[in-house]
Amino acid sequence: MTVRVSIVGATGYTGSELVRILAGHPEVELVSLTSRSYAGIPLREIYPHLDRYSGLVCEEMNMQKLMDVSDVVFVALPHGHAMPVALEAHRRGKKMIDLGADFRLEDYRVYEKWYKVEHGAKKLLGEAVYGLPEVNREKIRGSWLVANPGCYPTSAVLALAPLLKQKLVDTKSIIIDSKSGVSGAGRTLSLGSHFCEVNENFKAYSVAAHRHTPEIEQELGRIAGEKVSVTFIPHLLPVTRGILSTVYAEPRSPVGKDELRALYLDFYKDEFFVRVLPAGVFPQIKWVSGTNHCDIGVTVDGGTGRLIIISAIDNLVKGASGQAVQNMNIMCGLPEDKALAGPGLYP
Amino acid sequence: MTVRVSIVGATGYTGSELVRILAGHPEVELVSLTSRSYAGIPLREIYPHLDRYSGLVCEEMNMQKLMDVSDVVFVALPHGHAMPVALEAHRRGKKMIDLGADFRLEDYRVYEKWYKVEHGAKKLLGEAVYGLPEVNREKIRGSWLVANPGCYPTSAVLALAPLLKQKLVDTKSIIIDSKSGVSGAGRTLSLGSHFCEVNENFKAYSVAAHRHTPEIEQELGRIAGEKVSVTFIPHLLPVTRGILSTVYAEPRSPVGKDELRALYLDFYKDEFFVRVLPAGVFPQIKWVSGTNHCDIGVTVDGGTGRLIIISAIDNLVKGASGQAVQNMNIMCGLPEDKALAGPGLYP
Amino acid sequence: MTVRVSIVGATGYTGSELVRILAGHPEVELVSLTSRSYAGIPLREIYPHLDRYSGLVCEEMNMQKLMDVSDVVFVALPHGHAMPVALEAHRRGKKMIDLGADFRLEDYRVYEKWYKVEHGAKKLLGEAVYGLPEVNREKIRGSWLVANPGCYPTSAVLALAPLLKQKLVDTKSIIIDSKSGVSGAGRTLSLGSHFCEVNENFKAYSVAAHRHTPEIEQELGRIAGEKVSVTFIPHLLPVTRGILSTVYAEPRSPVGKDELRALYLDFYKDEFFVRVLPAGVFPQIKWVSGTNHCDIGVTVDGGTGRLIIISAIDNLVKGASGQAVQNMNIMCGLPEDKALAGPGLYP
Amino acid sequence: MTVRVSIVGATGYTGSELVRILAGHPEVELVSLTSRSYAGIPLREIYPHLDRYSGLVCEEMNMQKLMDVSDVVFVALPHGHAMPVALEAHRRGKKMIDLGADFRLEDYRVYEKWYKVEHGAKKLLGEAVYGLPEVNREKIRGSWLVANPGCYPTSAVLALAPLLKQKLVDTKSIIIDSKSGVSGAGRTLSLGSHFCEVNENFKAYSVAAHRHTPEIEQELGRIAGEKVSVTFIPHLLPVTRGILSTVYAEPRSPVGKDELRALYLDFYKDEFFVRVLPAGVFPQIKWVSGTNHCDIGVTVDGGTGRLIIISAIDNLVKGASGQAVQNMNIMCGLPEDKALAGPGLYP
Repeated sequence: MTVRVSIVGATGYTGSELVRILAGHPEVELVSLTSRSYAGIPLREIYPHLDRYSGLVCEEMNMQKLMDVSDVVFVALPHGHAMPVALEAHRRGKKMIDLGADFRLEDYRVYEKWYKVEHGAKKLLGEAVYGLPEVNREKIRGSWLVANPGCYPTSAVLALAPLLKQKLVDTKSIIIDSKSGVSGAGRTLSLGSHFCEVNENFKAYSVAAHRHTPEIEQELGRIAGEKVSVTFIPHLLPVTRGILSTVYAEPRSPVGKDELRALYLDFYKDEFFVRVLPAGVFPQIKWVSGTNHCDIGVTVDGGTGRLIIISAIDNLVKGASGQAVQNMNIMCGLPEDKALAGPGLYP
Repeated sequence: MTVRVSIVGATGYTGSELVRILAGHPEVELVSLTSRSYAGIPLREIYPHLDRYSGLVCEEMNMQKLMDVSDVVFVALPHGHAMPVALEAHRRGKKMIDLGADFRLEDYRVYEKWYKVEHGAKKLLGEAVYGLPEVNREKIRGSWLVANPGCYPTSAVLALAPLLKQKLVDTKSIIIDSKSGVSGAGRTLSLGSHFCEVNENFKAYSVAAHRHTPEIEQELGRIAGEKVSVTFIPHLLPVTRGILSTVYAEPRSPVGKDELRALYLDFYKDEFFVRVLPAGVFPQIKWVSGTNHCDIGVTVDGGTGRLIIISAIDNLVKGASGQAVQNMNIMCGLPEDKALAGPGLYP
Repeated sequence: MTVRVSIVGATGYTGSELVRILAGHPEVELVSLTSRSYAGIPLREIYPHLDRYSGLVCEEMNMQKLMDVSDVVFVALPHGHAMPVALEAHRRGKKMIDLGADFRLEDYRVYEKWYKVEHGAKKLLGEAVYGLPEVNREKIRGSWLVANPGCYPTSAVLALAPLLKQKLVDTKSIIIDSKSGVSGAGRTLSLGSHFCEVNENFKAYSVAAHRHTPEIEQELGRIAGEKVSVTFIPHLLPVTRGILSTVYAEPRSPVGKDELRALYLDFYKDEFFVRVLPAGVFPQIKWVSGTNHCDIGVTVDGGTGRLIIISAIDNLVKGASGQAVQNMNIMCGLPEDKALAGPGLYP
Repeated sequence: MTVRVSIVGATGYTGSELVRILAGHPEVELVSLTSRSYAGIPLREIYPHLDRYSGLVCEEMNMQKLMDVSDVVFVALPHGHAMPVALEAHRRGKKMIDLGADFRLEDYRVYEKWYKVEHGAKKLLGEAVYGLPEVNREKIRGSWLVANPGCYPTSAVLALAPLLKQKLVDTKSIIIDSKSGVSGAGRTLSLGSHFCEVNENFKAYSVAAHRHTPEIEQELGRIAGEKVSVTFIPHLLPVTRGILSTVYAEPRSPVGKDELRALYLDFYKDEFFVRVLPAGVFPQIKWVSGTNHCDIGVTVDGGTGRLIIISAIDNLVKGASGQAVQNMNIMCGLPEDKALAGPGLYP
């Protein structure tokens, strides 16, 4: 059985990354790509790396037609634009995976406060499942609407889930110092993504004010079963792909390095995409570049007893389009790693 | 039928790239990896991006054992080291693909002049086939010993083959201005590959003195059926992967842009891995990064009538390990694009 | 005596680079900065690296006031906007240096053909001096209006001037393969300067169609005393600063390496900013980064007899703002290297 | 009066950076450069960017001669090699500034534990002054032996000094998440500085085990007047220059953003090289690249009350050679900013 798939907003970086991944998916037929800016233009003219792999021409969005031809709709639009698509998918009984933020926060007031737009599909918030398979696999399996996690939250929640599940750390002590490549900011032009401003540069941004903060706190809180407050500081790396998060937390009682690593090995023992690294080895973003893997290294600071967890993902794959395909595979009863297994490019 | 494959010199960049590619090859079993520096160490400890995809442990080279277990041997060693392996493969009736320079030059005196070592298997030079499938496919099919082309020659010969085949250009007029990423220099430490010396820098090197010059002239000469002399200047780009060659040639009589492009479209019409770009579009190395494609754009300089051909490849894939697997597929009667088709990462 | 200087268009990269250089000029008082986009904003808020070094606030352009307070006006605007300033400077007897293209081409029809705008000050074209000091020093000294050369032409003309002066090369044989950092495209947003599109990428652009072509041909023609036609292909390097031009030319009769180098050493023997490199050494853009130097290496291709000249400059310094200050120093009777001498950053 | 200066170990990156800076120092005569690897070779052949600015030839180290000709000796050697020079300088009454670690730690046992070599000049440890001018200016003024701070400690101590001086934070709560460019690792070849391993990559290293940890704790402890334990994690940025440290600390009692910033403004009000940024603005390494400035931005995390201090320096200037010259200026009674004031390159 072939799954018919459409991508709404196919010409941004997460959209084209979906096309790249799905081009290698034997159970998927990509049937429609929409784009406001490039309607009428073959995708391979916009992204010549896809020449030979997609003959589709971008179309204006036509909601009726979209639903007619699709079993699954990926929405890769800026926040605030996925609600009407979700309402229609709901009406028509289609599956939808939203790569944006519109269905990630369970409380629409939190959403509206952080994203500064009204939520146009509040009634569906209760149906959306937060699509982090390593935490929520069973819920994803049965759902029609998946909110694909943000890139930073994916890196942070995978780094912290074992600790919070085991209630090992003070939930007020968590600091997440994240560093992301520039592709996380998308293809929209801005001075902050202008080559000469980023190259050979490095900075923190949205200091203690990034929109992914409530998402991280919500998901960590669910795992912990109690309120979690974090300090989260994102930084901009002069690279295209990759997020590395260095996470600090105070243990409730002293923990040893080996014990800590054993906890992670056990927690992720059945997870193909999470690789807990050998003792003394810490992740590098190039090791996961172009893959759906999340690499994690852990240790304990000898001087202070503080726990240190470092995770790395490719923000466009495990942090976006790869995880979206992983969710689709789960929702459609396909092998979870289909089109996703494989080593990345190194060097 | 599964092809049993070994890699001699598995821990350099072309060796590990072979492992990456072959990990996705359904007809190949990778049976042995040799390494002088890392014998006894699992490959995934040296290259953690391969964790989950190769469980092999690097071994000391043992020629007998190597031949016993292998149908095909890839040799990814510095020049001067492939001859003994070839002699043994010959004796044992095994197939071998040499990613180095030892069997590329038909005249051992040219080899010895440029590479400053004695050639230790002169009698096999006549049996070696220059492994550029788009030019030599039929010869490769019947051969047991393939000399995999150099990265620069691949980019230059694919750019020029249609012109020389048609005898369209003055064979003394060719200038090849090439720009390569740093991975072409391999993993061996040198000041020339030291991050701070390369980053934010750009230079020509081996100016009019690079070892790939005689290889380019030999292969172009074969295609032209006459002696070809080129000016070849390589430059070092501050990127990891990619070669872009800007090629200039004087036409014997005036040629129009459309006519020129039509020639290339026709010459490469059945070649999956060569993409002749639309009129007015020229290659970018990122479009081919991580792929076995060679993208080519052509035009004519309106002011001078000079022909301009620009080609781009990934030096580690079409310029090395990908082309080696392409050659293996041909030699073994497998579909030529097996494990090689697929779009690259962009951005 | 202090020279009172204004910059029209101070917030682009060439404008802010002028401020950086002039901040260290003991004979200059920077009196006014204009900016359409940032009027009312202190320059140090736009460019925090200038904090402590400029307290000026950007102003709306007011032509009367500008001329009142200035002895010299630098114009760092996009082409087509310098003409009214020049007309006013002429009326008021002020010196002006235009960093744009408006006064570089002596024939307004050529200007209008390549730049697609009408020339609004044709009568001043005869008064403008092309500001390449190593070629035109005496004319610059006596002039009130200097057309500061384009970045590519600076690198190309300095590379070729000795050859053309001596009539050593076939004037139809010249090929200029140039590679530039991204800052040459300025601070204006475009997909072509978007980090993810440039980083780890490399491409040719404006292939055989760049606006600097007629400027190069004009200046080389003046030096040669005959018409010169060149093939000029610019490429985009994933670095911020630097242009390296690899130039090829056919000698009218055979020339030796040493002879060639001796010619360059002699031609530039009194030029502080041009460094002819030792035999066998070729330029690297990092060696000139942040400086007003042009480094040149030369050789002869043994196989073909072709001459190879490689030059490197910092496109924002010798290719723009540094050369503009050099011109100002000459026009004002100041030591030519004032505020410009000094080694660059390495690494 | 001219200060006669020598550099021991002139051909590493900190050595050549000293030459670059001192080339612009009107009160300094550079009299001797020593180098083990390059004795007999003009410095401009090793570092062509210094051509025109230094005619010195590297010499074998000759301790007697060195002291004869020098008033001040800079030592830019790996740790463990500065002791004999210091003993001789002491004997001869010369001033010395050590850019390495040999005189930074007051307790030789701590030194020997972290650096794994015996300390060969224990008796001089009491005479060495830790050369961070913003904290120790008066002691530096009277000293003959200055231990120039490590790059990470400079960024960390300047970020934290105001807080610890005022006893505002819990001294057990400090986390320093630092990110450094590759030049901090010097010019010595290693896989960790190999272009292809660093480019487009990012990692933590020496996790909770870096040698700068005891130096940071010692200096913070001196300022605080009590023992300070920090968690310090360095990371490697794919850039050449720059350190950005993101520092987290728990206030003893709640502090507001404005109050925090006022504290920093006051503490650094007379410091030319420290720029406390406007409210809501945080440092970028490019703003300080090539300069002796340290930029600092501060805020309070609204959710947790945690203090966040971000500092940026150029690791080769304020983190090494620039600070060394600043110390020399102070020791010799020269204006502290001589040869050091000036904006950096941007972009």
